[in-house]
Amino acid sequence: MRLVRTPEELKIALKGAQQVGFVPTMGYLHKGHLSLAERCRRDNRTAVVSIFVNPTQFGPSEDLSRYPRDLNGDLELLRSAGVDLVFAPEPSHMYPSDFSTWVEETSLSKGLCGARRPGHFRGVCTVVLKLFNLVKPDRAYFGEKDYQQLKVIQRMVRDLNMDVDVIGCPIVREEDGLAMSSRNVYLSPEERELALCLSRAIQRAQEEALKGERSPKRIIDAALSAVPEDPRVQVEYVNLVDPETLEDLDELRSAARILLAVRVGTTRLIDNGPLSLGG
Amino acid sequence: MRLVRTPEELKIALKGAQQVGFVPTMGYLHKGHLSLAERCRRDNRTAVVSIFVNPTQFGPSEDLSRYPRDLNGDLELLRSAGVDLVFAPEPSHMYPSDFSTWVEETSLSKGLCGARRPGHFRGVCTVVLKLFNLVKPDRAYFGEKDYQQLKVIQRMVRDLNMDVDVIGCPIVREEDGLAMSSRNVYLSPEERELALCLSRAIQRAQEEALKGERSPKRIIDAALSAVPEDPRVQVEYVNLVDPETLEDLDELRSAARILLAVRVGTTRLIDNGPLSLGG
Repeated sequence: MRLVRTPEELKIALKGAQQVGFVPTMGYLHKGHLSLAERCRRDNRTAVVSIFVNPTQFGPSEDLSRYPRDLNGDLELLRSAGVDLVFAPEPSHMYPSDFSTWVEETSLSKGLCGARRPGHFRGVCTVVLKLFNLVKPDRAYFGEKDYQQLKVIQRMVRDLNMDVDVIGCPIVREEDGLAMSSRNVYLSPEERELALCLSRAIQRAQEEALKGERSPKRIIDAALSAVPEDPRVQVEYVNLVDPETLEDLDELRSAARILLAVRVGTTRLIDNGPLSLGG
Repeated sequence: MRLVRTPEELKIALKGAQQVGFVPTMGYLHKGHLSLAERCRRDNRTAVVSIFVNPTQFGPSEDLSRYPRDLNGDLELLRSAGVDLVFAPEPSHMYPSDFSTWVEETSLSKGLCGARRPGHFRGVCTVVLKLFNLVKPDRAYFGEKDYQQLKVIQRMVRDLNMDVDVIGCPIVREEDGLAMSSRNVYLSPEERELALCLSRAIQRAQEEALKGERSPKRIIDAALSAVPEDPRVQVEYVNLVDPETLEDLDELRSAARILLAVRVGTTRLIDNGPLSLGG
């Protein structure tokens, strides 16, 4: 496995590479990331992973400065996963001081997390497009945990005629149901317990839908009933949406997805899942 | 020479193409465009020209609907110029009804034409990035007549790590000095005569600079003295700028460029030129 730090080194390292698979990450890797890296390695001749805590997707009051980092640990894990090439640039390699070009998706990115994190998806789209242009992958792998991000990137790739297949991969969970996230490290033991409310909320919603419930409001109420009344737990949103347009559903008819964001202490967690119709 | 109309056909037509040169145009071709096409053919193994009147770079009160078109005439000219492939898509091929992703340069694009044509450079950047992703050129050729556009696109390409060399080519002029433009066809014979004030203004500015004048204000005043007092002629801007940052200069020191936009009747014309320092 090779580590490169600059776009110039990356270009040389990728010269002549064929069938390139790519997993962009912000590092501090967990089993969710590794499932993407392993899929990437299986599906492609050359498996590339980037590690870059992208400053432009963090708001001014967000956790950029304390975002967890562990490059050596990450490299160890990626080596074990059989990755060929790791690209870990510095912010100055990606954003010169007079950087001035942005990519913005203006429909799917506006609700849900986008409404609470202004500029977040602009930063995500911009850095992902840059990374795609640098790595030139045939396929790129994203976790469904960031479901809105996945859909925004797929839309960007379609709209901008980018020649890459963007593949969504299943959420990887801890044994007790908590979705893997680099931010889970922020949680105290008590908060870690409270954080189970996210996956439980999704489960309750899924049970209601399977029982035949078709009212989004009642399904969302069922989900919310899994959230403890505790001042440390603040629901940011729970929405039941069309899985492609991300628009709120007024009735559960065919495919649907429940997405939610909850603050536990100072940590913002997200989760989501598909709803299957029973009845 | 081959003509393709859809992104899918283009992809097939370009399969295996090496050393691709590209000239994006809005059609109604003149000698300026042809100089780009000829340079493109000389420098590359495969010469591709696109013809697409890009709706997203026109403002609501601009001339999209009456923009001149002549596909058959254009194809004739490009065939004579030795072009290999012409891509002439319909708007629906480029912009599906739920299109929602935009590329925006936020520094160089804000003054000059950008200040008078809100959204224009966003449309330009978006379509050029799309076309680059479709054609995958090694080199792309743009006329210096649209000098701000050239600099905005070069910045976009740098910022977004696009692997294409963007080459600016000299303005081609009519014998009397008028810069070639598809919009010149809008001019009545009287307006055609009045339109000479743009190139004359640049000439006067160049003469002043050569004589040793270093004050941008006095150089601009000299340029303006070439503009007739006529109600049909309205100066939109005359600026003396740094050729890379496009910022106004407060003193003429080294490289500088004069850029201007003038309305003649209902037709908006632009022109520009470098200033060489004499004295």
